[in-house]
Amino acid sequence: MFPDIPLAQIDDVVKDSMEAFRVFKKVSLADRAKLLQQIALELEARSDALIAIASAETHLPEARLQVEMKRTLFQLTSYAVACEKGDWLEIRIDTADHKRNPPKPDIRKMLHPLGPVVVFGASNFPFAYSTPGGDTATALAAGCTVIVKAHPAHAQTSQQVAEVIRTAVKKCAFPDAVFQHIHGSSFETGKALVTHPSIKAVGFTGSYSGGKQLFDWANQRKEPIPVFAEMGSVNPVFLFPEKLEHDATIVAQQYAQSITASVGQFCTNPGLLIGIKGSGLDNFIHELKNEIVQIKPAPMLHAGIAKAFHEKKAAALQQKHVSLIVEGDGVYEETFGVPTIATVDVAVFINNPFLHQEIFGPYSLLVQCKDNNELLQVARHLEGQITSSIIATDREILDNEALIEHLKTLCGRMVLNGVPTGVEVCYAMQHGGPFPATTDSRFTSVGPDAIKRFARPVAYQNWPDHLLPVELKNENPLQIWRMVNNEWRNDAIA
Amino acid sequence: MFPDIPLAQIDDVVKDSMEAFRVFKKVSLADRAKLLQQIALELEARSDALIAIASAETHLPEARLQVEMKRTLFQLTSYAVACEKGDWLEIRIDTADHKRNPPKPDIRKMLHPLGPVVVFGASNFPFAYSTPGGDTATALAAGCTVIVKAHPAHAQTSQQVAEVIRTAVKKCAFPDAVFQHIHGSSFETGKALVTHPSIKAVGFTGSYSGGKQLFDWANQRKEPIPVFAEMGSVNPVFLFPEKLEHDATIVAQQYAQSITASVGQFCTNPGLLIGIKGSGLDNFIHELKNEIVQIKPAPMLHAGIAKAFHEKKAAALQQKHVSLIVEGDGVYEETFGVPTIATVDVAVFINNPFLHQEIFGPYSLLVQCKDNNELLQVARHLEGQITSSIIATDREILDNEALIEHLKTLCGRMVLNGVPTGVEVCYAMQHGGPFPATTDSRFTSVGPDAIKRFARPVAYQNWPDHLLPVELKNENPLQIWRMVNNEWRNDAIA
Repeated sequence: MFPDIPLAQIDDVVKDSMEAFRVFKKVSLADRAKLLQQIALELEARSDALIAIASAETHLPEARLQVEMKRTLFQLTSYAVACEKGDWLEIRIDTADHKRNPPKPDIRKMLHPLGPVVVFGASNFPFAYSTPGGDTATALAAGCTVIVKAHPAHAQTSQQVAEVIRTAVKKCAFPDAVFQHIHGSSFETGKALVTHPSIKAVGFTGSYSGGKQLFDWANQRKEPIPVFAEMGSVNPVFLFPEKLEHDATIVAQQYAQSITASVGQFCTNPGLLIGIKGSGLDNFIHELKNEIVQIKPAPMLHAGIAKAFHEKKAAALQQKHVSLIVEGDGVYEETFGVPTIATVDVAVFINNPFLHQEIFGPYSLLVQCKDNNELLQVARHLEGQITSSIIATDREILDNEALIEHLKTLCGRMVLNGVPTGVEVCYAMQHGGPFPATTDSRFTSVGPDAIKRFARPVAYQNWPDHLLPVELKNENPLQIWRMVNNEWRNDAIA
Repeated sequence: MFPDIPLAQIDDVVKDSMEAFRVFKKVSLADRAKLLQQIALELEARSDALIAIASAETHLPEARLQVEMKRTLFQLTSYAVACEKGDWLEIRIDTADHKRNPPKPDIRKMLHPLGPVVVFGASNFPFAYSTPGGDTATALAAGCTVIVKAHPAHAQTSQQVAEVIRTAVKKCAFPDAVFQHIHGSSFETGKALVTHPSIKAVGFTGSYSGGKQLFDWANQRKEPIPVFAEMGSVNPVFLFPEKLEHDATIVAQQYAQSITASVGQFCTNPGLLIGIKGSGLDNFIHELKNEIVQIKPAPMLHAGIAKAFHEKKAAALQQKHVSLIVEGDGVYEETFGVPTIATVDVAVFINNPFLHQEIFGPYSLLVQCKDNNELLQVARHLEGQITSSIIATDREILDNEALIEHLKTLCGRMVLNGVPTGVEVCYAMQHGGPFPATTDSRFTSVGPDAIKRFARPVAYQNWPDHLLPVELKNENPLQIWRMVNNEWRNDAIA
C-alpha cells in the first residue's frame, strides 16, 4: 500500500533527525512533557477512527484495541509526568571542598539524551508497542528525536498515527523532524537506518531473528550503539502440587485465559508449564482441558503469523514423546490460531532444544516432572525469559529456594500466584530479561524507567551555578530529587 | 614469572565462581560491605610491602603509588558504605490497588547481581584500576563473584594483592571462589574467560585493541554479555582567548603538570589542545614551553609502552605540517617518556585521522584555529571521549553554546577551567564516554554508581511481604530510599 522509502533518502531523514535533535535536546522537561500530553490528546480525539483502521489491519477485536488505546494514552501521560518530575535524570551532586588537600572540585551529573533513535514497532500492539508506543514516548521524554519505521502488518494504522503525532509536534512548535515516519518492508531499510552513524539507539519489538540482526548490525558499526530489542519468551510457569490441591480450578481458569487472550499473541504469553505429577496436577490438567476446549479458534494478526503458528505447532507435536492434551473446538480457517496444550516428560524436554522455543500464539507445553529436583533441572536448562511465574503455597516457596534463586538470574519479572500477561505501566515494572528474551536486560521497556534507555550520564566539573543546566542548579527550581553529597533531597542547596 | 593457567583449567575456575556466586548473591548488603572493608584493612596493613613490589614492577615512584593506594582504600571503603546504604538497588515499589478494575497487583523491583565477572586490570594503576580496584570492588558490592586475570606488567603485585583479598574472603567466611586470581598473558586465556557461558560481565581497562576484542567476543557469544571496557581518550581541551589573556601562565602551569604527571600515563591525560590564534594563545604556548622544558624524561611503566610512545610520537611528528613546540630536556633511556608538545593547523588535523589517536604518554598536540567556528569544526570531527575541558570566561561559554552542546554528546565529563586528570571518587563522577572511549557510556567505572554495572532489575509481582527480600519489605528495616507509589521515601510502608 505504501512504497518503501528509497534507500538514497534515508541519509536525508537521519540528517533531518540530527538537526532537529540539536534543537529538541535543549527543550525543557516541561515542554517535552507537553508534547507527550499533546500526542495523547490528539490520539484520543481520533481514537475511534484509528481503532477501526487497526482492527481491519490486525484482526484484533475493537474491544481489545480500545483497551490497548487506553494503555497507550496512559503510557504517554504517565511518562509525561515522569519526564517532568525528573527522577530519571539520576542527578548526583558533590559540592566543592576547598579545604581538602588537594581541593575537591564541584561535580554534578545528570542524564543527557543520546541522539536520534530508530523505533521498529510490534505486529501485535499497533498502538502500545508501535508508532505512538513506549519506545517513541520514552525516547521523546529523554530528549531524543525519533524515526519510526512502520510495521508492514499495520502500515495504514501507522501512517494515520504518524499524522496525529506530526500534528502534536506542530502544535508544540517543535521542528517537524522531531518525529519522522517511514515505510520500508525490505531488509535494507532497517540496515540503512541502524548502521547510519548519526543514529544513536534502536528500539525493537518482534522476532528473535529480527532483533538479533539489528543487534549484530549495531555492534558491528564503527561506533556500536545500544539496541533494546524484545525478542520473545516462553514465560515458564512452575506449578507446585500443594497449591494445585487447593486451587487447581481457579489456576486453570486463569491460565486458560492467559494462554489464549488475544489469540496468544502477547510477549508474556505463558508458553511453558512445568508441574509435578500427582493429583493436583491431574486436577489442573482436567480443568484446563475443560476451559481450553471451550475457547474458539480466532483470527491471528496476519497470515504469516498464523502460518508460523501452525507449522511450529505441528512440528512440536511431531517431536518424539510429545502428546496433545487439548485443542480449542470449533470451525476455523488457516489464518486462525487454535488454543492448544501439549505435554511431554522432563528428560525429553531437556534434551530437545526445539521444545524450548516460543510458538507465538495460543499454545502451551506442559512438562511433567516427578519431583522438585526435576522441576529445578528444567529451570536450569531454560534460556533467558521476560517473566517466570510460580504457582505455590508459601511453604512450597520456602522449600524451593534453589529454584527461586535461579529464577532471579533467569528472568526480569517473577509472578507469584498470578499470570504473566497484563504488564502494568508503573515504576516497579521490569519488562525485559536476560538474552535471548531481550538484548539488554539492564533496562525495562515498560514504566518510566524506560526513559533511561535513551540517555547517558554527563558530569559537569567546576561549573559556576549560572552556567549549569537548570536541573543541576543550587536553587533546584524544579524540586527534583537529587543525591547531594550522598544524601537524597529535593530542596535547594544552601 | 608466573606460568599461564592451562586453558583446560579455566572451566573449573568459572564453575567454582558460579558455585560461589550461588552463595554470595544471598549475602546481605552489610556483609558484602564488610568484605570490602576487610579487603581495605588487609591492604592497608601490607601497603608498604605492596607498594615496594609495585614500584619495582611498574617504575612508578613510591610517592605516586602511596597516593594510588590511598585512593584504592578510599574506593573500597566508600563503595562499602554505598553498598550497604542500598541506593544503587534502584528500588521501585508500586503497591496493590484491589479496587481498580482489573485489580492492580503489588510489584516491587530491585537490582540483582549478574553472576561471575571477569576483571582485566590496567597497566597504569596496579592498585586502583587492577586487582583490588574499582571493577573488583563494585562487582563484589553488587553481589557478583570475581575472577581477576593478572596484568602481566605487574603480575607479582597482582599475586600478592590476590593473597590479601583471599585472606579477607576467608576472614569473612565466604567461599574461597568469591574471588579468584589467575595468570595468563596469552590471547587465548582472555578469550576462554570471556566466552565461557557462565561469565556474565567483563571489566577492562587498557588499549582500544584489547577492549574492542573483548567486546566483540562478548557480543558474538550465544548469550551476549556486557563489557565495560575503558579504552583510551585524547581528552580534548578547548582554550579560549579571553581567558588566556588573563590566565595564560596559570593554565600553562596546570596543563604542563596534567600532561606529564605519572609520565602522561593517565586515561584522562590531555592529549589534544585546541586554541584560537592570538596573543593569549601565544602567551600560553610560551609559558607551556617554559614549563615543559623543565620536566625531565622519566621511566614509563614497561618497555613495550615506552616503545609504543616513541614510535607513535615519531610517526605523529613525521606527519605533514606537524611541528614540534617543545620537548622535556634531559638525558634519557629508551624506556623513558619524554614530555612533548607538537602543533598543527586545523585543516591538516581534521583531514588526518592518525592525529586524532591517543599517544599514551606525556604527549599533547596543539591544534591552532583562526576562530570559534574552526574550533567547533575540530570538536565535531572527534570521536567519543572520556572528558572534555574548556578554558574560558563565562562570556566565552555563553558565546559558544554550539560547542558546549556538542561536548555533551561527545564525552562523559566536562571540566571547566581545570584539568581532566584527577578523577574524584564520588557519586557525581562520570568516568566513561561514548565509543571508542569506553564500550558502554551509560555507565561509570568510578564512583558508587559503578556498582550498577554488575546488576540488573528483577521485579517481584504479587509476593507476600514475608517472602520478599529484606530490601523490598514493607518495614524497610535497612531504611533504604525507595520510590514508593511514585514518591521517594526511606520509611516503612504503612
